[in-house]
Amino acid sequence: MEQGGKTAARGWAARDASGLLSPYTFSRRVQGDGDVTIKVLFCGICHTDLHVIKNEWGNAMYPVVPGHEVVGVVTDIGPGVTKFKAGDMVGVDYFVDSCRACTSCGTGHENYCLRLVLASNGVDHDGATTKGGFSDVVVVSQDYVVRVPESLPPDGAAPLLCAGYALNEPGKHLGVVGLGGLGHVAVKFAKAFGMKVTVISSSPGKREEVLDRLGADAFLVSHDAAQMKAAAGSMDGIIDTVSAGHQIVPLLELLKPMGQMVVVGAPRWPLELPAHAIIAGGKRVAGNGVGSIADCQSMLDFAGEHGIAADIELVGMDYVNTAIERLERNDVRYRFVVDVAGSHLDATA
Amino acid sequence: MEQGGKTAARGWAARDASGLLSPYTFSRRVQGDGDVTIKVLFCGICHTDLHVIKNEWGNAMYPVVPGHEVVGVVTDIGPGVTKFKAGDMVGVDYFVDSCRACTSCGTGHENYCLRLVLASNGVDHDGATTKGGFSDVVVVSQDYVVRVPESLPPDGAAPLLCAGYALNEPGKHLGVVGLGGLGHVAVKFAKAFGMKVTVISSSPGKREEVLDRLGADAFLVSHDAAQMKAAAGSMDGIIDTVSAGHQIVPLLELLKPMGQMVVVGAPRWPLELPAHAIIAGGKRVAGNGVGSIADCQSMLDFAGEHGIAADIELVGMDYVNTAIERLERNDVRYRFVVDVAGSHLDATA
Repeated sequence: MEQGGKTAARGWAARDASGLLSPYTFSRRVQGDGDVTIKVLFCGICHTDLHVIKNEWGNAMYPVVPGHEVVGVVTDIGPGVTKFKAGDMVGVDYFVDSCRACTSCGTGHENYCLRLVLASNGVDHDGATTKGGFSDVVVVSQDYVVRVPESLPPDGAAPLLCAGYALNEPGKHLGVVGLGGLGHVAVKFAKAFGMKVTVISSSPGKREEVLDRLGADAFLVSHDAAQMKAAAGSMDGIIDTVSAGHQIVPLLELLKPMGQMVVVGAPRWPLELPAHAIIAGGKRVAGNGVGSIADCQSMLDFAGEHGIAADIELVGMDYVNTAIERLERNDVRYRFVVDVAGSHLDATA
Repeated sequence: MEQGGKTAARGWAARDASGLLSPYTFSRRVQGDGDVTIKVLFCGICHTDLHVIKNEWGNAMYPVVPGHEVVGVVTDIGPGVTKFKAGDMVGVDYFVDSCRACTSCGTGHENYCLRLVLASNGVDHDGATTKGGFSDVVVVSQDYVVRVPESLPPDGAAPLLCAGYALNEPGKHLGVVGLGGLGHVAVKFAKAFGMKVTVISSSPGKREEVLDRLGADAFLVSHDAAQMKAAAGSMDGIIDTVSAGHQIVPLLELLKPMGQMVVVGAPRWPLELPAHAIIAGGKRVAGNGVGSIADCQSMLDFAGEHGIAADIELVGMDYVNTAIERLERNDVRYRFVVDVAGSHLDATA
């Protein structure tokens, strides 16, 4: 369906801070010389989507079509496209373009470009607000598209596009805090990398699942002071995936001297960081957002080789409002993925 | 003066949380096989001393003899001492022993040993509370003593023992926040390392001194939003030496993507760290306490080669209470050093 060269698109969008999603019709940009047109098959639901559609970060540009964990099939390519062909299984990540001129872009760290164009609720180079993967079709520059290995289930691969960045030091001891969409994938990657993995969770009931099914080496209940104390100074690194407000000092105490905690969850309120908690042991708190396109491709290739996919609950688009509600209370093991291609996008629920 | 093999010592100590210092007589341990006895010449006054004597960190073990920036002359050595001889000019740092058995100690990072024995208000292996350099004599294991290069003025070298640890990347752009005892030394080291240095200060009046006398390349007033915005994303690293409560988000914004802020000041209240401030740019907040003995020796040697000493105000022991008061309101350029050997330690002020 074409409208002056543009591609008609159907999706679901939030109209206001209620975050309620409903059918929404719009159009994608004209497929450019280097662009790939992708039929969306699956799209993961991430906490970021929840924060944005409810305007919790104060930056929502309604209507917001969420979704930045997109897996789909290439249906058309511009004449300049060399990397993909129709029929390829591909993924689109947290961002769909960058300035391509700054130092970050020039050194393969385009994920840190200050003019990064986010896949959803971002500002494109032409000033348009970007619409995410909760829609039937996306048009993306080939340079910001990754290939999904055939060995991966495309639905379980979708959440990896956002979640799949971990430390990578075989033999080291990694703590994973929080066992949601990011946390459970971090455990899988870390085990595949040959790390010792301890999961730190506020839910004692998750112990069996963590040890038996996910294959972690140990499990700590975060509010059990004796357990936490016994593990003090034992970890080389920690990945903190918790997006609710929480104390980080007890986590920093788990680190060995010179250890690093990587923050990937983004609570609404600032973390409280007493200087002594990092000075005495020469510790670090690092932020880590999404990786570069090259990082993302390497991660997917590694996941393909080691059979790592996210554990998901596949839902239809008419279930997304309920899914968001459940996500908000962490009632999902471990990631919702919307079966976009299998849903009637313009039907009301 | 010997009392059963112990060395009599005269110093000044705080008796309670008023932090008021007054003459105090005690004894040093019997000089052991590997010990060095040092006549104290000079001792710097650091914010840590202030925090401890006023029990602001809640860990004071009164009476507290402060001082961990000690420069003196070796007067006697145990039979097993090979590294020093009588007459050597030496320094004692923030700590005077460690367990010598753990991984940190075994890998040259004894500064991160969990059983580190601090030079003042620490717990020695025999359970005794350690007394610092505000006294005429100290007895220290040779392995925790450094040599002070002859090219350095011993009084101006004293503050280096605590303050002299900086980033070291020629050509990189370093921000130094706060221009006290640590900050002004950081500027000198960074310039000697060939870095571009910008000082960030809340005092516009310091501009000339920073640029003309300390040789920094640029000066930013921290509450000038326009200046701060113009410098956003320009720095590879930042050393934050401020020990008063302050906002770190405006500082993190000065960092390039993947930049690191090193916290060396220790405010009483936790720093507020919103996750997004480090996630978006993949930034890091690192703690850095004192370095290892080997680090300290390298730093002193480098300072000796490059003629780097702290700018100090030399005071008598009978002035320390006033000095502490002035330090508390940052009224010092840039570090007080007590002329221990030149003071009448048992006279009241």
